[in-house]
Amino acid sequence: MGIRLGDNQYGKAEVRLVHIDRGTDVHRVKDISVTSQLRGDFEAVHVEGDNANCLPTDTQKNTVYAFAKENGGVGAIEDFALLLARHFVDEHDCVRGAREEIEEYGWDRIDTADGPHDHSFVRSGGETRTTVVTKDGAEEWVVSGLHGLTVLKSTGSEFHGYPKTKYTTLRETTDRILATDVTARWRYIGTAVDWDTTYASVRAILLEAFATTHSLALQQTLYEMGKAVLEAHPEIAEIRFSMPNNHHFLVDLSPFGLDNPNEVFYAADRPYGKIEAAVERDDAPDAGRAWETVPGFV
Amino acid sequence: MGIRLGDNQYGKAEVRLVHIDRGTDVHRVKDISVTSQLRGDFEAVHVEGDNANCLPTDTQKNTVYAFAKENGGVGAIEDFALLLARHFVDEHDCVRGAREEIEEYGWDRIDTADGPHDHSFVRSGGETRTTVVTKDGAEEWVVSGLHGLTVLKSTGSEFHGYPKTKYTTLRETTDRILATDVTARWRYIGTAVDWDTTYASVRAILLEAFATTHSLALQQTLYEMGKAVLEAHPEIAEIRFSMPNNHHFLVDLSPFGLDNPNEVFYAADRPYGKIEAAVERDDAPDAGRAWETVPGFV
Amino acid sequence: MGIRLGDNQYGKAEVRLVHIDRGTDVHRVKDISVTSQLRGDFEAVHVEGDNANCLPTDTQKNTVYAFAKENGGVGAIEDFALLLARHFVDEHDCVRGAREEIEEYGWDRIDTADGPHDHSFVRSGGETRTTVVTKDGAEEWVVSGLHGLTVLKSTGSEFHGYPKTKYTTLRETTDRILATDVTARWRYIGTAVDWDTTYASVRAILLEAFATTHSLALQQTLYEMGKAVLEAHPEIAEIRFSMPNNHHFLVDLSPFGLDNPNEVFYAADRPYGKIEAAVERDDAPDAGRAWETVPGFV
Amino acid sequence: MGIRLGDNQYGKAEVRLVHIDRGTDVHRVKDISVTSQLRGDFEAVHVEGDNANCLPTDTQKNTVYAFAKENGGVGAIEDFALLLARHFVDEHDCVRGAREEIEEYGWDRIDTADGPHDHSFVRSGGETRTTVVTKDGAEEWVVSGLHGLTVLKSTGSEFHGYPKTKYTTLRETTDRILATDVTARWRYIGTAVDWDTTYASVRAILLEAFATTHSLALQQTLYEMGKAVLEAHPEIAEIRFSMPNNHHFLVDLSPFGLDNPNEVFYAADRPYGKIEAAVERDDAPDAGRAWETVPGFV
Repeated sequence: MGIRLGDNQYGKAEVRLVHIDRGTDVHRVKDISVTSQLRGDFEAVHVEGDNANCLPTDTQKNTVYAFAKENGGVGAIEDFALLLARHFVDEHDCVRGAREEIEEYGWDRIDTADGPHDHSFVRSGGETRTTVVTKDGAEEWVVSGLHGLTVLKSTGSEFHGYPKTKYTTLRETTDRILATDVTARWRYIGTAVDWDTTYASVRAILLEAFATTHSLALQQTLYEMGKAVLEAHPEIAEIRFSMPNNHHFLVDLSPFGLDNPNEVFYAADRPYGKIEAAVERDDAPDAGRAWETVPGFV
Repeated sequence: MGIRLGDNQYGKAEVRLVHIDRGTDVHRVKDISVTSQLRGDFEAVHVEGDNANCLPTDTQKNTVYAFAKENGGVGAIEDFALLLARHFVDEHDCVRGAREEIEEYGWDRIDTADGPHDHSFVRSGGETRTTVVTKDGAEEWVVSGLHGLTVLKSTGSEFHGYPKTKYTTLRETTDRILATDVTARWRYIGTAVDWDTTYASVRAILLEAFATTHSLALQQTLYEMGKAVLEAHPEIAEIRFSMPNNHHFLVDLSPFGLDNPNEVFYAADRPYGKIEAAVERDDAPDAGRAWETVPGFV
Repeated sequence: MGIRLGDNQYGKAEVRLVHIDRGTDVHRVKDISVTSQLRGDFEAVHVEGDNANCLPTDTQKNTVYAFAKENGGVGAIEDFALLLARHFVDEHDCVRGAREEIEEYGWDRIDTADGPHDHSFVRSGGETRTTVVTKDGAEEWVVSGLHGLTVLKSTGSEFHGYPKTKYTTLRETTDRILATDVTARWRYIGTAVDWDTTYASVRAILLEAFATTHSLALQQTLYEMGKAVLEAHPEIAEIRFSMPNNHHFLVDLSPFGLDNPNEVFYAADRPYGKIEAAVERDDAPDAGRAWETVPGFV
Repeated sequence: MGIRLGDNQYGKAEVRLVHIDRGTDVHRVKDISVTSQLRGDFEAVHVEGDNANCLPTDTQKNTVYAFAKENGGVGAIEDFALLLARHFVDEHDCVRGAREEIEEYGWDRIDTADGPHDHSFVRSGGETRTTVVTKDGAEEWVVSGLHGLTVLKSTGSEFHGYPKTKYTTLRETTDRILATDVTARWRYIGTAVDWDTTYASVRAILLEAFATTHSLALQQTLYEMGKAVLEAHPEIAEIRFSMPNNHHFLVDLSPFGLDNPNEVFYAADRPYGKIEAAVERDDAPDAGRAWETVPGFV
């Protein structure tokens, strides 16, 4: 019997970078958080504390900042993640793979009496755009997504026809609130993609499908959202969702002599439903290591 | 020497209420969190455990939900808070005062190919609208506000001319990023106010003043924001701000042979500057107990 | 009518300082977060953007770190806060007051086969120790406390005898779970106090009073906790509490043919009760500005 | 080309259950959060909104509460998770697999003058104990762990000998603070394990190994921690860690004429190092689906 090192990766997490494009008086803000991790020939540092192959996490951080300048800005986060991954793998013999995760936070120009301001911004709320680029030798996978897109239907949602067991107390309903925070990640086919345009399109499709699907179950809504994305975007192989069912319980006002025809709800915190699924193209290329350290359902 | 009960209040916190106005097919969502607290003749419950005067916090919660129905909805949060405060003080002999705090979360209609959807919504990010109504006998004060309004100027901000001491290492600058999360609370004069219209106006003024002020210090920006609000709104007696200085430090890229003309920044978490001040009308009515349990600067 | 600057303060928040006392091989860790704020002659910086009196928040941060060295360590957080407050007020003409708030996080030595380790520590969970020192000219007030002390009684708690109204649905009980997170702040008389010993004693008294009080209401438990502290500590003028009632609801298992004699509970998040009160000595010296920017009940 | 449903699971998350064992006057508290998810024949609910196979998440929640009573308490969280998983898979034809995740929060008896109290408790801070049981047909895997175990060495940590590149600025050191929050998960071989005893032992071993390892890299410390666990526990097949390097930067006090021989540190928030690795037994049984939806490195 022996004990050995298994899979491993290391790097610098949550490098908070804000880049200002000052090319004209109308500035542009790019606000990201980069988590860079490397895989490779790192047995010696674990087993012996020998750092000869251990490119410091501090160096990874410096590289992120330097590349934002050398690259003339960040660009699409997918491109920036690919740039970093290729650099680390190509320039260091001991590095055989990289995982570059980037989150992006949006900013809008502030409206003034003179129109949108040149260099003053307000953080757009709502969802965060994400990407995880995995590189293993020459192979590359891009999984992009979003989280924190919170949506609600005040009607157009039913739930009935489910199995009844000894432990069933839930009442069937043909009219309930349906609310969720969409976390979605989709795997691209290849890297020749117009990332920003596709992101905007996927986000719009997710919202429209949520809105226009008459829901019989959150699972069905999820599937319709995924199907709509895949139908519109052949460059996407699959899309995975993790969506809480944010329960809104109708308050019983009858003790006070009041009816409550789906008007007054209690928004609960915990527990919540948790619905997770992948929707995929049946002829999609193999996922390889794309999801290996990307939370698919967790 | 004796020991006695001092100031006290109790109630139910964070009652999460979602009201759906289904008056037409075009639904409206009102999403709030209510914290209701009472003051009065509560010595016996503290000193003797005698609950004869202790209106349960559960009853306060029930009242919040029932009133959303009896009132035909929530309406402006200031009006709903006043309604609750008056009910508790007027209907219960032992209750002599109330503090009703409400937060409101915004929802936008989802855009679809057929226009904004009737009953599907996406949570608007960004700031939370707030109010604290304090009632003491017949007197009433309304302090409304917002928090979580995150703004940034990529230029148009300087900082220099400050005192230098033994412990000074900061370099003066004529061009820096200025970023903050605005928390503001303003005290109204009276209760005959068009709350929703005023809120929208104050929010817009805060943003415009932040954007258009060439900043020599965050304190100056804060003051200009407050002054602009008071100049436009005679119904507001004073406005108080707590605004972090969210530091964005220019990254030193010189070790890598790169210059960095205010392009690449590190967005720091802690420590941060913390700037707090009131801007007030010199002929404003006395604040009374308006701020007593409202965090003014904390 | 004119507009003017009202109360204001500014400084650096959450300066995270870890000091290692290496005086012997048995190291000691002091882990604190300092928020330093100044009051004084700051009208020019607000109204005109003139920083001549504006000691930078960066300088305040530097001072915190330098003083940890010059002072030979941090010592009791109350002493360190007083040291900082006196420095800022005494050494700068434009500074007339200071507010120094410090949180302290505990660390225990790690147990090993050879006994407690000399220089390896595990963070003690549970409560955070706090202090807020307010200095106004020559006057000084110290308000210390703790937060995050989470306690629960599995029996020995009743709630009945409360008023019944139109909106009452709560059932009376003679046996319930009582659970809360204690936030307490106590005002010291003077500054000649053995801070660390007193803190340890107050913490122990709070726990013992919570445990041994048969509770008829959370208000009563709170009052007994405060009374016990004041009886034991003449150097404390008053103590203020903010304590949620963390509801644990008995689960109705009767649909499954099961009884539930106070065994299986659902721990709710929101809403929660919120009980806030001061317990005070009737011959205590006036509080002055001690509580002005310390959240008493909020 | 077609679109289809891929992997999926659904259930109820964060069911907060507190069980009081009142078998004697000396009560025992068990405080857990259960996330129950099912896998199986769920295509119809996704594709058609047909709920005939969709056991409601509400029913899963009810089952958790009922089982805490039927089972005479919770017992070890691993056993409770297995009980739930077996119930869902064995009792429902359409359910072919289950994922039961449980977190446990600790409580200590409050010390009083009369000794530890019978029914009053204080929440123990620090780490949370976890388990994830995965069941796929007849196969079962148990992955247990902990998170939130925060540790620090004030010396006995070096970092040097790493590769220098164009982007290196880090200075080598033979004496630094090493601090991390341990997240560990270990996979058991089989289910005939004394879960509580093993958990206590693993926790103690992790702490001791962290304390007594003279560190040349956090990777080396991690490996020693894992190796020590595997050497002591043949019932554990592998252990995976995700450990941030919580940077403590030495403050430069030289501008103030002060030296700083590793005494005064700034505890940084972001970015942080992130070190992740598995340590495994080379003759361990195959992991099967044990890690499929357990964050290994993320």
